[in-house]
Amino acid sequence: MKQKLRMGMVGGGIGAFIGGVHRMAAALDGEIELVCGAFSSDPEKSKASGAQLGIVPERAYGSFEEMIKKEKKLRPDKRMQFVSIVTPNHVHFAPAKMALENGFHVICDKPLAFSLKEAQTLEKVVQKTGMLFALTHNYTGYPMVKQARQMIRHGELGAIRKIVVEYPQGWLSTHLEASGQKQAAWRTDPQRSGIAGAMGDIGTHAENLAEYITGLKITELCADISTFVPGRLLDDDGNVLLHFENGAKGILHASQISAGEENDLNIRVYGEKGGLQWRQMEPNTLVVKWLDKPTQLYRTGVGALYPEAQAHTRIPAGHPEGYLEAFANIYRNFALCIRARLEGKTPDPVYMDYPTVQDGIRGMQFIERVIESGKSAKKWIKF
Amino acid sequence: MKQKLRMGMVGGGIGAFIGGVHRMAAALDGEIELVCGAFSSDPEKSKASGAQLGIVPERAYGSFEEMIKKEKKLRPDKRMQFVSIVTPNHVHFAPAKMALENGFHVICDKPLAFSLKEAQTLEKVVQKTGMLFALTHNYTGYPMVKQARQMIRHGELGAIRKIVVEYPQGWLSTHLEASGQKQAAWRTDPQRSGIAGAMGDIGTHAENLAEYITGLKITELCADISTFVPGRLLDDDGNVLLHFENGAKGILHASQISAGEENDLNIRVYGEKGGLQWRQMEPNTLVVKWLDKPTQLYRTGVGALYPEAQAHTRIPAGHPEGYLEAFANIYRNFALCIRARLEGKTPDPVYMDYPTVQDGIRGMQFIERVIESGKSAKKWIKF
Amino acid sequence: MKQKLRMGMVGGGIGAFIGGVHRMAAALDGEIELVCGAFSSDPEKSKASGAQLGIVPERAYGSFEEMIKKEKKLRPDKRMQFVSIVTPNHVHFAPAKMALENGFHVICDKPLAFSLKEAQTLEKVVQKTGMLFALTHNYTGYPMVKQARQMIRHGELGAIRKIVVEYPQGWLSTHLEASGQKQAAWRTDPQRSGIAGAMGDIGTHAENLAEYITGLKITELCADISTFVPGRLLDDDGNVLLHFENGAKGILHASQISAGEENDLNIRVYGEKGGLQWRQMEPNTLVVKWLDKPTQLYRTGVGALYPEAQAHTRIPAGHPEGYLEAFANIYRNFALCIRARLEGKTPDPVYMDYPTVQDGIRGMQFIERVIESGKSAKKWIKF
Amino acid sequence: MKQKLRMGMVGGGIGAFIGGVHRMAAALDGEIELVCGAFSSDPEKSKASGAQLGIVPERAYGSFEEMIKKEKKLRPDKRMQFVSIVTPNHVHFAPAKMALENGFHVICDKPLAFSLKEAQTLEKVVQKTGMLFALTHNYTGYPMVKQARQMIRHGELGAIRKIVVEYPQGWLSTHLEASGQKQAAWRTDPQRSGIAGAMGDIGTHAENLAEYITGLKITELCADISTFVPGRLLDDDGNVLLHFENGAKGILHASQISAGEENDLNIRVYGEKGGLQWRQMEPNTLVVKWLDKPTQLYRTGVGALYPEAQAHTRIPAGHPEGYLEAFANIYRNFALCIRARLEGKTPDPVYMDYPTVQDGIRGMQFIERVIESGKSAKKWIKF
Repeated sequence: MKQKLRMGMVGGGIGAFIGGVHRMAAALDGEIELVCGAFSSDPEKSKASGAQLGIVPERAYGSFEEMIKKEKKLRPDKRMQFVSIVTPNHVHFAPAKMALENGFHVICDKPLAFSLKEAQTLEKVVQKTGMLFALTHNYTGYPMVKQARQMIRHGELGAIRKIVVEYPQGWLSTHLEASGQKQAAWRTDPQRSGIAGAMGDIGTHAENLAEYITGLKITELCADISTFVPGRLLDDDGNVLLHFENGAKGILHASQISAGEENDLNIRVYGEKGGLQWRQMEPNTLVVKWLDKPTQLYRTGVGALYPEAQAHTRIPAGHPEGYLEAFANIYRNFALCIRARLEGKTPDPVYMDYPTVQDGIRGMQFIERVIESGKSAKKWIKF
Repeated sequence: MKQKLRMGMVGGGIGAFIGGVHRMAAALDGEIELVCGAFSSDPEKSKASGAQLGIVPERAYGSFEEMIKKEKKLRPDKRMQFVSIVTPNHVHFAPAKMALENGFHVICDKPLAFSLKEAQTLEKVVQKTGMLFALTHNYTGYPMVKQARQMIRHGELGAIRKIVVEYPQGWLSTHLEASGQKQAAWRTDPQRSGIAGAMGDIGTHAENLAEYITGLKITELCADISTFVPGRLLDDDGNVLLHFENGAKGILHASQISAGEENDLNIRVYGEKGGLQWRQMEPNTLVVKWLDKPTQLYRTGVGALYPEAQAHTRIPAGHPEGYLEAFANIYRNFALCIRARLEGKTPDPVYMDYPTVQDGIRGMQFIERVIESGKSAKKWIKF
Repeated sequence: MKQKLRMGMVGGGIGAFIGGVHRMAAALDGEIELVCGAFSSDPEKSKASGAQLGIVPERAYGSFEEMIKKEKKLRPDKRMQFVSIVTPNHVHFAPAKMALENGFHVICDKPLAFSLKEAQTLEKVVQKTGMLFALTHNYTGYPMVKQARQMIRHGELGAIRKIVVEYPQGWLSTHLEASGQKQAAWRTDPQRSGIAGAMGDIGTHAENLAEYITGLKITELCADISTFVPGRLLDDDGNVLLHFENGAKGILHASQISAGEENDLNIRVYGEKGGLQWRQMEPNTLVVKWLDKPTQLYRTGVGALYPEAQAHTRIPAGHPEGYLEAFANIYRNFALCIRARLEGKTPDPVYMDYPTVQDGIRGMQFIERVIESGKSAKKWIKF
Repeated sequence: MKQKLRMGMVGGGIGAFIGGVHRMAAALDGEIELVCGAFSSDPEKSKASGAQLGIVPERAYGSFEEMIKKEKKLRPDKRMQFVSIVTPNHVHFAPAKMALENGFHVICDKPLAFSLKEAQTLEKVVQKTGMLFALTHNYTGYPMVKQARQMIRHGELGAIRKIVVEYPQGWLSTHLEASGQKQAAWRTDPQRSGIAGAMGDIGTHAENLAEYITGLKITELCADISTFVPGRLLDDDGNVLLHFENGAKGILHASQISAGEENDLNIRVYGEKGGLQWRQMEPNTLVVKWLDKPTQLYRTGVGALYPEAQAHTRIPAGHPEGYLEAFANIYRNFALCIRARLEGKTPDPVYMDYPTVQDGIRGMQFIERVIESGKSAKKWIKF
């Protein structure tokens, strides 16, 4: 009889947004069971959250340190097997490091850390401990993103020339953080978010998506970084020119003041033979355009997709799969890799596909370089 | 500490499609736990399926009769609290009836039964036992469907005049059942599906959606029912004219030979003041059109939606919610209503919203009338 | 030096809608020159309209009879060569007949006549006189409609099974004719429109489009015809089941009370191998769907289209061509055929493509049958 | 009786693309008549083109100099009243200057000239002669572009913060000019195009559209200019960061190697209160997005549009108007302004709306600055 993998959570108490997302994503496939958590830095709140989530009181801990120590002492077949970290950016590093060093695998929200330096330290901890580490750049979990990546990898578009990746949102068009709205408050606070606002929160998703789909690394960038809302402490908009390793050129822009936009992450990639376009808000369609042939709409579940795309679809064509399903793909793949390790097997390569600590390092480099470029009179900054 | 509700399942063994959907839908919100099942009429297969699903061997039963009997004997705090029935149509009635009569709530896939007669019997069992009964007309679980219903209910479109509801699919364009494909095989088999093919499988969803959104009952219909694929035993296409109780006119067409269509359930409703349009394949947008004013795009999570729409959304605007989330809304509401009953409370009315045995009766009536009309030279058949 | 063809117009004075459309369509390609007209039944208004249109006063006639008689007496290289009839339905027959019998080719707005009987008489006049006659079912002038027709004709979709053609408008949702609005007034007046309202005005376009694209004739129909707006004298909505000659089934619905709809003529055709979809409001895209292959977007001017499509495009891909260009294709083809006759040549077959008096007969039959069916308790009425 | 305005044309002989566009645009409204032309620098070809266009042989001139001289000698009521210049960029200046100085109004294709210097000279000639001068930045002729401009002008979006304007094409993805294709050949030839390729041909349209819609001037820019196709002599792609006078930030990118793109000029503008989006390939829709309210689709001809939008629409809502109609709006407005001058009247302000020599100067400045920036290591270049 198959046993569910046991997960502990750091953060994600009542009222948090991303904690609930992680829990739904972890629950969807019946592979993972939430068994404990340090849901809040306030022990009372952590207990209350645990009770709502069906966690026995003694495993709703008052701090991540307590959770890691106490869980470690439980019987191997009882204790948590991995930790999910869903706190604001400034509380990623410490629990991740401690969990890894105490023999727990870690899945962590993005960006990886508060600073590039923290991120680099964490990378070393991952290497030293040999534990598995996943970063929830969840947008790469969509089947059509994987189809796009494989089409480019197999040369269907020819050499890549141009990449346009966008992430417009409008929810911070007003000084929302002044109202005490929790999501706005920490994301615009340098003490909790780090040196970047929009560029860290969503710019890194755009950067990650561009590198994931194209398989190309950004080599240098030129950024115009702005804060439009008076009183705001971090950037809320950025426009960036990109150079990629193979000579491709690109544009990345991310914004939280694009009034009326919801969460419109999208990418276009143009090669010598064709181009493709994917939009997160209609994620089950991949538009592929050709020189002098009809445009094609690749659709989740329709026809001969690459195995990497097919493996990340749960239901038949025309039954829309969304954000939670893509997020769940990260959790499911991470779980399958943990399970394979427990069983001493090599995971099926199509599932060995989730963002890692190296992706996290790229993201932190992006944040530091893009903010540096925004302040610089020099045109190009090496990535 | 909150306890999950305990669910037993009838059907849904390895290789089934809809069983997996029900399990994911039940798991998503952390409200429900699968504790037992009669996953197949073959006891070996049921055990094997149970093992894969993490069910202890003694609760993977060889038949639904065994499951109901044995679970009833377990301690109240251990035994299943409701049964989920995910078998083909001809195995809905017997397990539903037995479960209800033994004190278990039931959630059942659609259509309600093999025949209208069975359905009417079941309705009486539900009334007599007083147990809760839900039918998974899952498309009514989408937030924008609920918004549409409320807009019409509050008179925003004025009196309704015209309704066009469509459900085109193309997956049965060839004689797929001859290949042994499991989904095609039972759906086109009169012994397992009943008197209707496409009209039962998807036509009933269209009928249910039209009545749910408009709040109007169909009073008579005129149908043109076809079987296009040679060798097929049931209908694979139907075009139907509809009359509604208030004088509104309508069209319903459903097809499984609309080559190239995925699962394009959609509806348009026109009233005196405006019209609306919703498509299942882009479920987070509700298009509302007005006389001489700009068209509006209502979007899941954006702006001042009706509470009934808002309550069925899990994540912020622009993070697409799909089929599983809508399906999960049926399970979540059903779970909340069971929980309220256990606690002696009245559920919040916005969650007392899932299809019932009465909806199932309407569906079975639709099937019988539409097939009758298809064979009749008379123009209008009373519903 | 090429000479422009000389056109006379009946109807289309100041304030008319369709007259201006015909003039722009005729002018676009520099093939046709408006030289005279009987723009109104009121001689003063006709003169005033002529002056605005740059017509010399002596050729702005007070009646079509006067125009035909006087023009006939002019030198052959001066007089009009064909007549364009843009009056309401009840004034199609008389000027068309007289023009044809006096040696003038005729291009006429649809529907062909006030009644089927008139239409049949006109057909005989066309045959007897041997003059050219075009009917402006302008929607068949779009390049992507021609591409659709050719794809079906060449068997790309396999045998046709199902056709859904729709023509929803919303502009008559209120009792607009009571306000004196000119377009509404004559279209809802049985004295000027004939026995049908919406079914004649736009239903015939839908019928024509379906037969043009599929190459199949409607053989019988079953109609539900309604008048929703109190006080209106003719139908404003109709839902129709169709049978086609090869066994294909269809739905046609047309409406002028679909509140919020503009002019959304559209068609879907499904064959054994694939389906296609075209919408007049986005006319440069033809969606083609396949069993288990990516959907294709054929676009005006892109790739290897059929010559019949290519020949009706004026500008490069991505430069949208609209309603007037499609309308102009009817005029251009008609002009090329007149010119070929003048030069004793056979026109290039790709341009021998405009709706004829036979299409007009089909349209009038449709009107009579659909209204008959709407009143009948019999299910099927032979077309 | 109204007389048509008499137009002479420079360029646009058989086989040219844009000459035909100008002729159709000029013909559409019945305001303008083509009476003469120097259609080619080869007198034989000019004659042949003239014959095809119905021009009497003596007015199909061998050069623009001949045309201007000879037409000037004709009787005022016979001679051309304005000149349309549709030649490649290097033959804009000389005919424009000579025409203006000889008392003919001029309408000229864009960009204004071969160099900024020429453009500035031309501006002085326009001022000195007092003749009317129009530049065919035709995309500003669309009704929904005018609606967008008015909405911003009236403050509906609040202060503008961000502008994204794009012009992707894919037709130069291969070394098409090597094949002798006429359109590709001159556009990629520095001797005929000037210092810029894509940035001049289409980048200037994007720049013009952004300034027209927002009413804001670009103050500085930072460009990344590329030539991707080996052997090509001018740029085929450019990505540009923009600063606007009020502090707004922007991105402009234009490309002729975006494989599979047709002619996808589009713009998004975000203000404090809302955002808007317009796409040339679906020009009759203007998407307007708001903070926390449903998105609106403004449509050509629907509802209460600004008079400036309404005045540039010819047919009812839902009858798509395209590229030629927008182009024709420039000609129509230019014609109405010439006519007003002839009649000593002031034109209606809604029609005093066509791009002028000042817009041309902006375009030439854009070309020079963007190419300079592309070569510079300095981040920002003043506009």
